[in-house]
Amino acid sequence: MKAWHFLGPGHPLERVDIDVPVPGEGEVLVEVRAAGLCHSDVSIMKGVLDVTSKSPLVLGHEIAGVVLQIGPGVEDVAIGDPVGLAFDRAAAMRGEIDTPGVSRDGGFAGSVIGKTGFLVPIPKGVSFAQAAAGTDAGMTAYHAVKVAGRVGPGMKVGIVGLGGLGLLAARIAIILGAEVYAAEPKEALWPKARSIGISDCFADVLEMAPLRLDVICDFAGRGSTTAGAIEAVRSEGRVVQVGQAVRDATISIHALTLKAVELVGSLGGTGDDIAAVYALIASGQLNPTIETIGFDDIPAGLDRLARGALEGRLVAEYP
Amino acid sequence: MKAWHFLGPGHPLERVDIDVPVPGEGEVLVEVRAAGLCHSDVSIMKGVLDVTSKSPLVLGHEIAGVVLQIGPGVEDVAIGDPVGLAFDRAAAMRGEIDTPGVSRDGGFAGSVIGKTGFLVPIPKGVSFAQAAAGTDAGMTAYHAVKVAGRVGPGMKVGIVGLGGLGLLAARIAIILGAEVYAAEPKEALWPKARSIGISDCFADVLEMAPLRLDVICDFAGRGSTTAGAIEAVRSEGRVVQVGQAVRDATISIHALTLKAVELVGSLGGTGDDIAAVYALIASGQLNPTIETIGFDDIPAGLDRLARGALEGRLVAEYP
Repeated sequence: MKAWHFLGPGHPLERVDIDVPVPGEGEVLVEVRAAGLCHSDVSIMKGVLDVTSKSPLVLGHEIAGVVLQIGPGVEDVAIGDPVGLAFDRAAAMRGEIDTPGVSRDGGFAGSVIGKTGFLVPIPKGVSFAQAAAGTDAGMTAYHAVKVAGRVGPGMKVGIVGLGGLGLLAARIAIILGAEVYAAEPKEALWPKARSIGISDCFADVLEMAPLRLDVICDFAGRGSTTAGAIEAVRSEGRVVQVGQAVRDATISIHALTLKAVELVGSLGGTGDDIAAVYALIASGQLNPTIETIGFDDIPAGLDRLARGALEGRLVAEYP
Repeated sequence: MKAWHFLGPGHPLERVDIDVPVPGEGEVLVEVRAAGLCHSDVSIMKGVLDVTSKSPLVLGHEIAGVVLQIGPGVEDVAIGDPVGLAFDRAAAMRGEIDTPGVSRDGGFAGSVIGKTGFLVPIPKGVSFAQAAAGTDAGMTAYHAVKVAGRVGPGMKVGIVGLGGLGLLAARIAIILGAEVYAAEPKEALWPKARSIGISDCFADVLEMAPLRLDVICDFAGRGSTTAGAIEAVRSEGRVVQVGQAVRDATISIHALTLKAVELVGSLGGTGDDIAAVYALIASGQLNPTIETIGFDDIPAGLDRLARGALEGRLVAEYP
């Protein structure tokens, strides 16, 4: 089958033909119909993110496709089912990474191995490209807002950073009934933000302090954004940390303690989060901005991602 | 009535005779039977903590006594009831401080005004000195461990800093059924720690990482202790911040996010927390170390507190 091989940091991806994998116990073979291109792929290729445990490796961890073949002990899906591949968050919490495109071959290939318990049915009305994007960006945004942030109707929510994740998170918070504000230094992004229902935009998170926000989700992760969110959120409010642009943040433990603020790290999400995102897309309420490309365009697409020249999510679709 | 007046930072307390206050709507007059001496009093006297809003002011915010007189609209207590005075945490969360010894005259006097809704009945078996200490140190330790830390049976808990609060918190966690470890650089405190049921002691919080603790409560607040607790706690664990020895902490948002850790600020507590502490004392399970002194010894006691020459809580008892 066709595949793109990652040989190591600094090397361009190599177009190869490799054997179709055979599903073992608890595994299925999924024909890849769409695979999202993620900033993590770029970071892995640059050597900035050192998490891969196989070489050569097929990258691509945002995967949607159709079940082609089923190994022993798989009961949750049948051949022909359209599925998205969920992240094994519990393994990550144990410090183990068990994910296609990271620890084993991923979605930049004709097919991929999926695992029972981590296959999310794609409902009618959700395209493979949307389903692929939903497995990572959608899931992460939903988990941050709904699970870590506990956002619900009538709450006032701040979103820091209006990249792909931030915009998705803002939409999800609005759908959940919240009044949503954003902090984003690039004013050029404000009209788009307002068009999706964000009430107001500010250049800096500290400017949101008078709003007494219940929850602030930081998708920027610049250190100063974490510190600013703790200062800006209301007493007994929550700050959800998703972005990690820098390693460290210097925060005021006085502000944290005197206001009894909760600062909560949020990583990825679960199959339930993906299923919730698919339901929101199927209902027409959530419509992630997606640009599709072909299988052959994956290296050029990753280049564009590295240059940051993108609005929305880039997804490779295979015929 | 007798009272000690605080005139301003740098001034010694002045022994005065002032009028007995008259309880207004929703207020009661409490004859003070015991008043705890707190590090906050020392910080106020040094001018390090600038929170008072009256001058001259009677300090002392850990108060227990007997209801002497009742103003209109008070239905929760009767004359003769022994009560502890609870902290108005909700007001503090609104950024308002409404507390005897801070915003109005406190417990270093013959009597004090208490407010309806913030009077906690003292059960049989709890002395006034214990009840006074329970209104601040006990309440704060209980709130941090049980409410902010959600500690329960079978959990593994780390306590950072074995001062008065840390020792109380460790005992409370043990009573709640947890396995408790401590990080305390002063090895001289370790035998006492083991004698109250702490399983093991370490010089640094990072040494507790192999224990995969569910919750770590930081009573030291040295900045490095917050950062170390985030590194040491298990994935999806909680770090409760109580200590504030320094203003800022530089934390790893990578560790926070990758492990989905919750960092929770904890301030004071409520009347319910005080009532829970009184019940633990009455049952004989919790026995805070208290040294009692007389009313006339309050200035000397605060001096000793400032020099740090104390084990346990210092409480002034009035005959």
